[in-house]
Amino acid sequence: MALKNKVQSIVVSVWRKNTLLLSSSRTINTFATGFDDRILKSPSLVSLDVPDVWNSSSTDCSESSTHKLASEQPARVIDGKQVAEEIISKVAIEVARMKKTTGEVPGLGAILIGERKDSLKYVHNKIQACEEAGIKFKLTEFSESCTEDEVCDAIMRFNVDPSFHGILVQLPLPQHLNEEKILDVLKLEKDVDGFHPMNMGNLAMRGREPLFIPCTPKGCVELLIRYGVEIMGKKAVVIGRSNIVGLPTSLLLQRHHATVTIVTALTPNPEEITREADILISGVGVPNMVRGNWVKPGAVVVDIGTYPIEDASCEQGYRLIGDVCYEEASRVASLITPVPGGVGPMTVAMLLYNTLESATRKYNFV
Amino acid sequence: MALKNKVQSIVVSVWRKNTLLLSSSRTINTFATGFDDRILKSPSLVSLDVPDVWNSSSTDCSESSTHKLASEQPARVIDGKQVAEEIISKVAIEVARMKKTTGEVPGLGAILIGERKDSLKYVHNKIQACEEAGIKFKLTEFSESCTEDEVCDAIMRFNVDPSFHGILVQLPLPQHLNEEKILDVLKLEKDVDGFHPMNMGNLAMRGREPLFIPCTPKGCVELLIRYGVEIMGKKAVVIGRSNIVGLPTSLLLQRHHATVTIVTALTPNPEEITREADILISGVGVPNMVRGNWVKPGAVVVDIGTYPIEDASCEQGYRLIGDVCYEEASRVASLITPVPGGVGPMTVAMLLYNTLESATRKYNFV
Repeated sequence: MALKNKVQSIVVSVWRKNTLLLSSSRTINTFATGFDDRILKSPSLVSLDVPDVWNSSSTDCSESSTHKLASEQPARVIDGKQVAEEIISKVAIEVARMKKTTGEVPGLGAILIGERKDSLKYVHNKIQACEEAGIKFKLTEFSESCTEDEVCDAIMRFNVDPSFHGILVQLPLPQHLNEEKILDVLKLEKDVDGFHPMNMGNLAMRGREPLFIPCTPKGCVELLIRYGVEIMGKKAVVIGRSNIVGLPTSLLLQRHHATVTIVTALTPNPEEITREADILISGVGVPNMVRGNWVKPGAVVVDIGTYPIEDASCEQGYRLIGDVCYEEASRVASLITPVPGGVGPMTVAMLLYNTLESATRKYNFV
Repeated sequence: MALKNKVQSIVVSVWRKNTLLLSSSRTINTFATGFDDRILKSPSLVSLDVPDVWNSSSTDCSESSTHKLASEQPARVIDGKQVAEEIISKVAIEVARMKKTTGEVPGLGAILIGERKDSLKYVHNKIQACEEAGIKFKLTEFSESCTEDEVCDAIMRFNVDPSFHGILVQLPLPQHLNEEKILDVLKLEKDVDGFHPMNMGNLAMRGREPLFIPCTPKGCVELLIRYGVEIMGKKAVVIGRSNIVGLPTSLLLQRHHATVTIVTALTPNPEEITREADILISGVGVPNMVRGNWVKPGAVVVDIGTYPIEDASCEQGYRLIGDVCYEEASRVASLITPVPGGVGPMTVAMLLYNTLESATRKYNFV
């Protein structure tokens, strides 16, 4: 933990400095009142966005035997691959019925920028799943060096094309592109990833329903429900608060009436908090960060993290590992998702579901 | 707690029944697949919205002596009234400067429906504060039995009137009016209460900035900052998750890097969770629910709850009390807000600030 704390404290101190500079240069919070300071002492929110630096931990947790674990009864494995296949096959039946009834099929437009191995793999999985389900899929690819305007133009073409009911921009984007600007171009009615702030606000607010729930959180909760996990009244801890994973997961669990705690990279002693969780969900992409002794005996553990590590013995030259030290945690938890084969396939299945839902809405198909 | 649990379990069981009915009658989640059931097992989010029934507790916490308290060192009192006055006087200076420079002043349009005593009082406070700050204020009043269309028309008149930079609809609305429909009419650029889902989404998402931060949470955080309370890395517990108080408060504290837990009426043994909080914020409107033994010694306690109780000795015939049993909690906490005179005046000050900010934005006034 020492290294983590050091790195985090450097990041935070650099960030504090920048924040002060930013705050004092911003007009919005700096009404000049004579010789006096700003009216409010609160900084702008964006100036608060310190990057989360997590303990980089280890890609190997084979030293597990050194950890004292509370139980040696192995956890039941949540088979996300099988549930996802079941959902995709049902989506396929619906797509066929829609085609027969209306002559139309759902269409998904995707935008891929650059050649990140993981992004290529994810897009490949989505293409394959759409084929399986009979959903039309079109991929627009850009080189790493493309411009914001090129990407926005491509999104706008999908926006106006009535044969596409869903649009996704594969994240993360290269550094030089403004994610907010690009995602805001996307037509709300086709935002099948659910990343638009309007969708996020409606996800957060009781009494409201977003047009689309983000795929990964939706897949997590679907798994919990299918495996008979009670969410209401349970203590859920979400590690990480990214806009695409941690945040919507915590919001969705709140809508399901869990008592939710959100752990960030700035949380001191996160393991003390995670050990209280009935449901522990991690989505930070730090291999093996969550050790066996972070888990309460009998808890349900959902691992959203994926981190590619080189492995010559694998077909693609790498394999994916999760945030959770599976070997250890599976000896403490009652239920656990593996990586791969846990939440990953569910994300794809939910994307298909959301695309079908969008087309269903458009054609008033029942 | 026994009564609370009984009432809550009745509410939840009635709600479960309705949820099942709702779920099965909704088309969005019920693609028929032959003889099979729904594709997803997840219910619609709105169908999950069980009402929060809190322990009604007592309007009196004078039996405090029976509680064992950890410290007898009295808490420092957070003087929200004084801070609010300071902010309002600075807003007034800015308004005067704007008038001198541009010839314009900020304008706030308000809509009040019915004759709830507390709403009347709040609106009265807002009128008075606007007068003090030189902000133009116009109130449109409706009887309890008005229609949605009448209210929406009034909002639309404020939407198009360039002399109003902020619009507020005093909540709660009478039962027969649809809050979502009414608030959605309000022009985003004039949503000085910050209740629009687009504002809420931008409050929640890192890298984004809402046009307006809801006034009560913004007032809370401003108080914490002014009283030197470190938020980053601290454990914050928010009791309640209403769209106007609990939800935005938890989102704002997350943006400030607290480790946030949201306690709901369905949380078993909430006092076990609140006792872990460095910063404890309650916003449910249940008098004296938070007892001294719910508070960690040395914690900072912010009481957003306000509940009117009849009191013939008061000028208005009633007085306001908070969620927190002040007598007890002030002997355990290190800092505490009173009710009245804590968060309440700050809410008004932030409304004025947001209205000024909106006008500043419109006139590009620096």
